[in-house]
Amino acid sequence: MKFKPNKISITSGTGESEHQLNAYDRALKNAGVGDLNLIKVSSILPENCKIKNKPQIPPGSFTPSVISKQTTNKNQVISAAIAIAECEKGIGLICEHSAPTIEKTTVNKTKKMLNQMAEDRNKTIKKIHIESEQIIPTKTGAAVAVAVFWR
Amino acid sequence: MKFKPNKISITSGTGESEHQLNAYDRALKNAGVGDLNLIKVSSILPENCKIKNKPQIPPGSFTPSVISKQTTNKNQVISAAIAIAECEKGIGLICEHSAPTIEKTTVNKTKKMLNQMAEDRNKTIKKIHIESEQIIPTKTGAAVAVAVFWR
Amino acid sequence: MKFKPNKISITSGTGESEHQLNAYDRALKNAGVGDLNLIKVSSILPENCKIKNKPQIPPGSFTPSVISKQTTNKNQVISAAIAIAECEKGIGLICEHSAPTIEKTTVNKTKKMLNQMAEDRNKTIKKIHIESEQIIPTKTGAAVAVAVFWR
Repeated sequence: MKFKPNKISITSGTGESEHQLNAYDRALKNAGVGDLNLIKVSSILPENCKIKNKPQIPPGSFTPSVISKQTTNKNQVISAAIAIAECEKGIGLICEHSAPTIEKTTVNKTKKMLNQMAEDRNKTIKKIHIESEQIIPTKTGAAVAVAVFWR
Repeated sequence: MKFKPNKISITSGTGESEHQLNAYDRALKNAGVGDLNLIKVSSILPENCKIKNKPQIPPGSFTPSVISKQTTNKNQVISAAIAIAECEKGIGLICEHSAPTIEKTTVNKTKKMLNQMAEDRNKTIKKIHIESEQIIPTKTGAAVAVAVFWR
Repeated sequence: MKFKPNKISITSGTGESEHQLNAYDRALKNAGVGDLNLIKVSSILPENCKIKNKPQIPPGSFTPSVISKQTTNKNQVISAAIAIAECEKGIGLICEHSAPTIEKTTVNKTKKMLNQMAEDRNKTIKKIHIESEQIIPTKTGAAVAVAVFWR
């Protein structure tokens, strides 16, 4: 494959709107990735991939990404989290989780699942990076947490 | 990323079958994209991408696409729409929507959401391109509207 | 597009865990594809793609794949199947299906739908390759069957 990103960034955001699709679009914009063409991938951090704070990706770029997304049409709390585990050697691991719960609960579950992914592979985690967000929309809202791969 | 399409086409179709997967497959064939390997992407039109009437893509090609899909197992109307907004400058926007409603309702909501996407980005729409379809299947059916990126 | 795999392999697996995401992750690991970055594609076998028994793909690779996935939070049987039809000439076809049923039922339906895909295209099937798996988890479990494209 010619898909060879060497950087990854995580970010999160929330949005509200009358329409669910627009709430999701606003959450992505709020997270700073609303002008990208996101392509969903599953959740491995290639060995050569560095974790960077701010993604620098031209608008419209086709961007492999791990997406945690929660939407609601009710006045209730929702949250989304994404976590990256840098490991002692080899690949790292990425875990996404979202739920109609408060951020803290979602973050804790995300970490638990990430730790189990590492244990299952006999991997030692060096550092966990995590981004998360919650919102209680008036009506229709979205919370997202996204990892984007870039080069 | 090496994913650099410079053309986009939109199309739509419907299908029926005893099996839902085959109804969907037939709808894609009816739309003229049934022999492609569609890869779902989110909904931005890169600046250099031209809108073309007929996609010319070899069978089996891995094809980034925005997919609007509605299926049903009941004798009821379903519809799917996809719309592209060419903007005054910079990126354009793509909006997909599908629902168990008549085509006109789905198209109107698609346009509303597309306009909101443009407003949220302070963008002036130059032209809207839209494709849509509806079907009332005897039993199991699918309606699709698809934007395919190609080169 | 620069996405030009020339090999495909199919595999299947199951997993259990307290968390659904980990059950799915373990099923992918059990299938031998848990350390890849899977990118979902729809289901056409390009003409030049050879079917190989064992995928040899470096960990972390971005890997186009057709995914059949069934999860449950109950003590019930679930199964997943994936089938490839090599055809007399031109492209081949891929069909994925999963359900809360026994493996045999899922496999039979997968074959039926694959045959309909071939009929719809006036194609003669030369050979069908199929992988499937079932599990009755104590509580939370996953069954997967996956086709991965590689080079």
